[in-house]
Amino acid sequence: MGQASIGDILKEKEKEQMRNLVATQKKIIELKAGEKIDAFYLIKSFDVKKTTAGKQYIDINLVDKSGEINAKIWEYSKETDNLVSESSIVKVRGEVLEWNGTKQLKINKIRAKLPTETLKISELIPSAPVESSEMLQTIKMYVEKIEDVQIKLLVNNILDKYNTKLLYYPAAKKNHHSYMGGLLYHSMRMLQSGEKLGQIYKFLNMDYIFAGVILHDVCKILEMDSDEYGVVSDYTMEGKLLGHIIQGIKEIEIEGEKISIDREKSVILQHMVLSHHYEPEFGSPKKPMTPEAEILHFLDVIDARMFDFEHALQGVEPGSFTDKIWLLDNRNLYKQ
Amino acid sequence: MGQASIGDILKEKEKEQMRNLVATQKKIIELKAGEKIDAFYLIKSFDVKKTTAGKQYIDINLVDKSGEINAKIWEYSKETDNLVSESSIVKVRGEVLEWNGTKQLKINKIRAKLPTETLKISELIPSAPVESSEMLQTIKMYVEKIEDVQIKLLVNNILDKYNTKLLYYPAAKKNHHSYMGGLLYHSMRMLQSGEKLGQIYKFLNMDYIFAGVILHDVCKILEMDSDEYGVVSDYTMEGKLLGHIIQGIKEIEIEGEKISIDREKSVILQHMVLSHHYEPEFGSPKKPMTPEAEILHFLDVIDARMFDFEHALQGVEPGSFTDKIWLLDNRNLYKQ
Amino acid sequence: MGQASIGDILKEKEKEQMRNLVATQKKIIELKAGEKIDAFYLIKSFDVKKTTAGKQYIDINLVDKSGEINAKIWEYSKETDNLVSESSIVKVRGEVLEWNGTKQLKINKIRAKLPTETLKISELIPSAPVESSEMLQTIKMYVEKIEDVQIKLLVNNILDKYNTKLLYYPAAKKNHHSYMGGLLYHSMRMLQSGEKLGQIYKFLNMDYIFAGVILHDVCKILEMDSDEYGVVSDYTMEGKLLGHIIQGIKEIEIEGEKISIDREKSVILQHMVLSHHYEPEFGSPKKPMTPEAEILHFLDVIDARMFDFEHALQGVEPGSFTDKIWLLDNRNLYKQ
Amino acid sequence: MGQASIGDILKEKEKEQMRNLVATQKKIIELKAGEKIDAFYLIKSFDVKKTTAGKQYIDINLVDKSGEINAKIWEYSKETDNLVSESSIVKVRGEVLEWNGTKQLKINKIRAKLPTETLKISELIPSAPVESSEMLQTIKMYVEKIEDVQIKLLVNNILDKYNTKLLYYPAAKKNHHSYMGGLLYHSMRMLQSGEKLGQIYKFLNMDYIFAGVILHDVCKILEMDSDEYGVVSDYTMEGKLLGHIIQGIKEIEIEGEKISIDREKSVILQHMVLSHHYEPEFGSPKKPMTPEAEILHFLDVIDARMFDFEHALQGVEPGSFTDKIWLLDNRNLYKQ
Amino acid sequence: MGQASIGDILKEKEKEQMRNLVATQKKIIELKAGEKIDAFYLIKSFDVKKTTAGKQYIDINLVDKSGEINAKIWEYSKETDNLVSESSIVKVRGEVLEWNGTKQLKINKIRAKLPTETLKISELIPSAPVESSEMLQTIKMYVEKIEDVQIKLLVNNILDKYNTKLLYYPAAKKNHHSYMGGLLYHSMRMLQSGEKLGQIYKFLNMDYIFAGVILHDVCKILEMDSDEYGVVSDYTMEGKLLGHIIQGIKEIEIEGEKISIDREKSVILQHMVLSHHYEPEFGSPKKPMTPEAEILHFLDVIDARMFDFEHALQGVEPGSFTDKIWLLDNRNLYKQ
Amino acid sequence: MGQASIGDILKEKEKEQMRNLVATQKKIIELKAGEKIDAFYLIKSFDVKKTTAGKQYIDINLVDKSGEINAKIWEYSKETDNLVSESSIVKVRGEVLEWNGTKQLKINKIRAKLPTETLKISELIPSAPVESSEMLQTIKMYVEKIEDVQIKLLVNNILDKYNTKLLYYPAAKKNHHSYMGGLLYHSMRMLQSGEKLGQIYKFLNMDYIFAGVILHDVCKILEMDSDEYGVVSDYTMEGKLLGHIIQGIKEIEIEGEKISIDREKSVILQHMVLSHHYEPEFGSPKKPMTPEAEILHFLDVIDARMFDFEHALQGVEPGSFTDKIWLLDNRNLYKQ
Repeated sequence: MGQASIGDILKEKEKEQMRNLVATQKKIIELKAGEKIDAFYLIKSFDVKKTTAGKQYIDINLVDKSGEINAKIWEYSKETDNLVSESSIVKVRGEVLEWNGTKQLKINKIRAKLPTETLKISELIPSAPVESSEMLQTIKMYVEKIEDVQIKLLVNNILDKYNTKLLYYPAAKKNHHSYMGGLLYHSMRMLQSGEKLGQIYKFLNMDYIFAGVILHDVCKILEMDSDEYGVVSDYTMEGKLLGHIIQGIKEIEIEGEKISIDREKSVILQHMVLSHHYEPEFGSPKKPMTPEAEILHFLDVIDARMFDFEHALQGVEPGSFTDKIWLLDNRNLYKQ
Repeated sequence: MGQASIGDILKEKEKEQMRNLVATQKKIIELKAGEKIDAFYLIKSFDVKKTTAGKQYIDINLVDKSGEINAKIWEYSKETDNLVSESSIVKVRGEVLEWNGTKQLKINKIRAKLPTETLKISELIPSAPVESSEMLQTIKMYVEKIEDVQIKLLVNNILDKYNTKLLYYPAAKKNHHSYMGGLLYHSMRMLQSGEKLGQIYKFLNMDYIFAGVILHDVCKILEMDSDEYGVVSDYTMEGKLLGHIIQGIKEIEIEGEKISIDREKSVILQHMVLSHHYEPEFGSPKKPMTPEAEILHFLDVIDARMFDFEHALQGVEPGSFTDKIWLLDNRNLYKQ
Repeated sequence: MGQASIGDILKEKEKEQMRNLVATQKKIIELKAGEKIDAFYLIKSFDVKKTTAGKQYIDINLVDKSGEINAKIWEYSKETDNLVSESSIVKVRGEVLEWNGTKQLKINKIRAKLPTETLKISELIPSAPVESSEMLQTIKMYVEKIEDVQIKLLVNNILDKYNTKLLYYPAAKKNHHSYMGGLLYHSMRMLQSGEKLGQIYKFLNMDYIFAGVILHDVCKILEMDSDEYGVVSDYTMEGKLLGHIIQGIKEIEIEGEKISIDREKSVILQHMVLSHHYEPEFGSPKKPMTPEAEILHFLDVIDARMFDFEHALQGVEPGSFTDKIWLLDNRNLYKQ
Repeated sequence: MGQASIGDILKEKEKEQMRNLVATQKKIIELKAGEKIDAFYLIKSFDVKKTTAGKQYIDINLVDKSGEINAKIWEYSKETDNLVSESSIVKVRGEVLEWNGTKQLKINKIRAKLPTETLKISELIPSAPVESSEMLQTIKMYVEKIEDVQIKLLVNNILDKYNTKLLYYPAAKKNHHSYMGGLLYHSMRMLQSGEKLGQIYKFLNMDYIFAGVILHDVCKILEMDSDEYGVVSDYTMEGKLLGHIIQGIKEIEIEGEKISIDREKSVILQHMVLSHHYEPEFGSPKKPMTPEAEILHFLDVIDARMFDFEHALQGVEPGSFTDKIWLLDNRNLYKQ
Repeated sequence: MGQASIGDILKEKEKEQMRNLVATQKKIIELKAGEKIDAFYLIKSFDVKKTTAGKQYIDINLVDKSGEINAKIWEYSKETDNLVSESSIVKVRGEVLEWNGTKQLKINKIRAKLPTETLKISELIPSAPVESSEMLQTIKMYVEKIEDVQIKLLVNNILDKYNTKLLYYPAAKKNHHSYMGGLLYHSMRMLQSGEKLGQIYKFLNMDYIFAGVILHDVCKILEMDSDEYGVVSDYTMEGKLLGHIIQGIKEIEIEGEKISIDREKSVILQHMVLSHHYEPEFGSPKKPMTPEAEILHFLDVIDARMFDFEHALQGVEPGSFTDKIWLLDNRNLYKQ
Repeated sequence: MGQASIGDILKEKEKEQMRNLVATQKKIIELKAGEKIDAFYLIKSFDVKKTTAGKQYIDINLVDKSGEINAKIWEYSKETDNLVSESSIVKVRGEVLEWNGTKQLKINKIRAKLPTETLKISELIPSAPVESSEMLQTIKMYVEKIEDVQIKLLVNNILDKYNTKLLYYPAAKKNHHSYMGGLLYHSMRMLQSGEKLGQIYKFLNMDYIFAGVILHDVCKILEMDSDEYGVVSDYTMEGKLLGHIIQGIKEIEIEGEKISIDREKSVILQHMVLSHHYEPEFGSPKKPMTPEAEILHFLDVIDARMFDFEHALQGVEPGSFTDKIWLLDNRNLYKQ
């Protein structure tokens, strides 16, 4: 409605240019042994190593949105070494090899992204399939559905407190939803499933389900240190010594007291967080004692499993099996 | 639309009369110690016993839709003995006592239901909250949603085969859904939940989910002997030696072969039945290897747990706990 | 040093009178089948029941410091019924019987304690072998040994907060140290042992050991409802839904923040409380990660086990075994 | 009886020639580090790889009847590459090295077997110590001992159905009896042991024992894909999703129905197959409920263990221990 | 061969008289509710009890070779009380009742066995189906088969040492072979099975198998206190604190040293005893490391299980199931 | 007191010279990547290996008192090869590298220790922080505290028997206290802790505690083969087949009989040894049945854990975590 500004036009041009770049480059997940490639990737980490014969080479882990691949630059030079740095974008030319069933990239040429090439880091970073801001809005819509004013206020306050970090935090260091925005995506899908199941099991108190889902993992933000691309370098000191379940309980206790929430409501929410891993050996010393705590556990595990199944079956030929998947008790999944 | 027939009118009168009868009588689950009662119940089982002092008395288990209570007739007489028989309806007058926290009925007067009293056995039998015929119709509606014609035909054939028994079979001998129509009710709610979750996890193949839900427990009909009131006297010989999972697999294999179903489809459905208990120690020697098999397990366990939670919390005062519930790992549930 | 006051003299007289009373009465733990008794006991609980033949009788549980015995008044009368009430002292005359290896008291005569009889409830209540005030003083002496001023202040504040209740709270509802003052006694002995082991393992930080011991179970006061005689009627709502470990962690977090304790110190103390049960299935989702947390666990379990062993072997003949002790994995202990 | 035919004579000559060949070559299991060798082996699998320095070499797994060894051809050439192919026999000259306790063959020279060299693949393939045809005959002799005509017919029909494959199928992909004819050998020895134990425990029904042994593993033929040398490339789709136990049960059900076997007999045999792994976590959701099912389990496990023990102790010096054996819970076996 | 002596004739007469007595009396295992009986039984234990109404009665446990039944004498009298004593034979007249599925004998008349009635205690005592002396001879025959003179001497010495007790010791306090001569019977059948399996698995060293079987349980004689009727009153002090496995090891060590047995042989035999329960939680801290130790375990468990199965299925109707059997993990066995 | 002898003076000079040597060399545990070193170490083991490119090199494991490091000599020569031998001291010059987080030494120069360099093997060997003779004396002082003369004699006899070996035996092949004198050090600290706890739990019999501690692991001397530097090459044959617990029991039995100790005392001590690992899966088929056996277990586990914690936290920066420690269930320890 009305004319596009110069800025808009430029931005649009940039987007197009980027789309072209991306179009000509192969997704890491789709690389096949024997293929030659010429593409932009992000350096996740690297190391200068030596062969057993004492020759130096550079070992790099490259990522794009689709996945990760290990690469080698066998011809070491000081200039190449200087060029390689963490979280920088490079253009690489090389060949895909296979080593004991694992793909590896032999890099023949590497150069830094030129300033004129408009690809941004965020475009190569693995992230949730929905925009973070959109997900956060969806989650806030569910908060609006909470009828109890105290619970609604508590949830809103905690969301506001972690507002910025929520936009990029993953749901885990490794495994399911360990990408930018993963925590939001995981929570959003659980809210959606929870709402649906509430239509079948009508005796459930939806206030607790919505609040419980949003609060159950929120203290992963305190448990792990993530950069703004959703990459977790490590757990925090408090995360290792206590863990996000305990941290979440304290969060509810303290934030609840600030708004003088009814003690019963606070304790029930804390109990939901405490029991949502269900088994002591997975971190829950108490089993769910309310139906909402019980269902919270299942929403959580279903979303994690569906993530794992969908992810593992990607790119598998119909009628064949995946390799053994450690995360899923070494099952071989079947793609029908 | 048009006139009611005489038959309709009579039926309506009977219904009203029955409603009155029921209105004046206390539900077993609501009986309180100290109360005098005067009501119709169904005799589930009885025994003539002796006190340690050698005096004869009659020990009866009475049920209605809401539950079960043990009763005693301390004054034995030959006439009373003759009057008491299994699955007959009696009117009892007496007093509710409490014995180590368990309620017991001391019967002072007992008589048979008069032919003029129109209460029917089915009205006292615990059963699913939805009419069996209605549930069966709902289930058939889901069959209609199956797109693969072979799978649809297979499911239809098996449903037709067990048509009559499905109308009254419980889902278990004891525990969750162990009442008339329980098998249908359990399956129906799982179909409804499965459909909902399919809206979130869109990569799921709904044909397998609908078929898997309907077939997962259907051979409980072969595993247990139930009378037409949904009361299971015992497991069958084949039920004990093999179990409904194995029986269900054979059913799919054989009925599938009859319609020359594609081998892959048959095997996938058999695998879903095989893996739906998830853990070897609960009867599943294989874990789910397809996402639909995985979700089937969760649909099953969620429906069972929601049944148990709802049931256990019935009649509990808000703000208090239930006793330890053996079925739920001795948890005390909290009623908020 | 100086003259005794009149009050002192009277108090002394009372004490003597009481000693005489106690002298003439048998300790419950020493009652033997066949014996006639005539003694004061405390009514812990009672119930009016009926024999299978319908005759009313009164079923009473009597206690003294040494133990508990079940008693029956077979001849029911309204007056007797009125006389019997919880937590009252009665004088009973009767005979000790044995029923399947369990002792039982047949009461022939029962009457209320006369006002002139000076026996007090506290003298019949099972309690720790050291005076509560003395134990509290000992514990405070250990607080004085804490060198870190923040930790010392934190511990002092929490002790002050629960000052009164500490004087009578037991360490458990059942099992080890489940008597008046049990919590203090358990903590005191752990402090003493901890101090000793610190002399061997010199790299241990005694501040954390002393603080950890005092705080590890202090929130049992919030987990259970105890009367002033150390008898726990039930767990609290928060106790059931969260448990004393979680409650203790929150206590340290909140009280620590109040005095702006260094975050590291607060988290380490919380971790000690979190990990002191050692195994997830016993309530600790994290294992000890500091040597002080590790040793805390062993101080706790050693004190509990020594209590159980000492208690179980009381009154056992040298050269013989106890019955199977459920608490100790059904071991039969040997008395050398 | 009469003269040898020309054919017989030639065959005899061939055999002698082969015996000479074999005589001059070392068994793989007996190779020692430092030894030079010049011998025929079968190529089980191979791969062209690169050293970390980028040099190509050929990695080969060689087998003979006695075992398997990894070999390297460090000097890559196109001709050598062409010569190397799976399941072909080659003559290799080289040296045995040792690498972290594992033997390895450094190949200096390699050539294809000449047509004039009469060694056959089957002569290098690991296989059962008894001829397959002889074992099958022994098994059929046991079928003859079955008195119940229905059970005998059922077993005969199933044996006939898998006749050809039985001659070469192994009993497993890896581990015990994973060689040509292993399935027959395992079954035969179990029949022999079963017969013996039946002489001690006379109440056992030998019909079920003989039939149960023959049927217990027969569907490994459907579970795994084996070539005619008893080498299993993979499990089948149905094998992975259901497993040989479930497949065996269906086999009995269907083949039983074809001959209208008494339902009880069919179900008992199915139960034997279902329960023969004994523990749920090993694939048996039901434990044996008949003495014959119980004994079947022990016949199975004893034969597997005796195989493992005999195999592991081969070549061990008396008075010394084997390495840790993963298959046997990391035991070190002792050779007396 | 030659004339019978007077003594022989008398003995023969006694035997006949006894046979008559036994013929006219019902076996306890065959008693049915409602039946009147008049028979000799052995008093295993008794107690004078009171009804809840305070009336005295005598509670008796009666046994014969076939089993055990609880009986009541409701009419207490001093004379009856005097007549009743442990391990005495009485003649009882009464009626078989059923109480919650358990049979009970209501005794109307009871008298002591007259001296002229020749029934002996041993004739009513449950015992192995083979004469003890005959079993001992069989076992000694197996000792003769041991080729190693040191091992043979060791086994002979230990057998001689426990000669007398072996004739009546049961193999257990409860459970399998817990009757007179049970230890011999259990060992004898294991020897027979071991010999048979040695014919299949020819690499086994039969010396160790025969010696291992004989020694594996022999120190149950030191672990339990049994009277000469094979009734175990209790475990010994050393039995409780160490157990028959440890006791057996020490026995072999010490007796072996006395005859200067080769150290290796002694240690291997000790290892067999140590590992024969196979699992740590059943008392074996080491798993079998020789094939003979491995097979010893299976001989042991097979004989125990066959005993349990045979025993449990006794008297069960073909086509029906037993009740749940605790000893066999609550299985319901099926009688085909 | 008086003049130093010439011998003393020389010895003193040697000591000083050695101290200088040691002063100029880096402790292995303190080596940092990038550092150049020039120091004496002991060769623990070595191997001549080949790079994948076929070049020979020497792989050496070097130790000093502080720890162990892997080293490589890339330039192989026959002379170097001759120089390198196990348990010899060498002077090495080289550079510390890091390889996947593990330190490695690249050796540029290596030579044998000159005879004039007075460093002794024992000065480089990892060993307990207290002199063995001093520790043995401390232990004997505890024996003196045993009041029961029989128990004291037994302990003294066993100590005397293993006198020499005790001076250097480690407490384990790997893990806690696996260094020269480790067995003495472990026992000594347990005695000290036991004495302390006996001051709190006064009902404990200190005779059994002192004797139990000294005897609990003494047969590790029979279970493992250690050289005089406390390096265990392997377990003994009897150690593998029976283990030090069983060996210790036999030791007490036999040595006890020699001095005619009261049977009860011997059995109680054997029970303490048997039960001190507490759990069947760790080698104790019986759980402690006396308070002294119970406490013995805790003394043992506390000393092992304190060793592991102290050791693991050595050199860790305050405020950071260790890597995952396999021995401690993969915990990351925190250094406050």
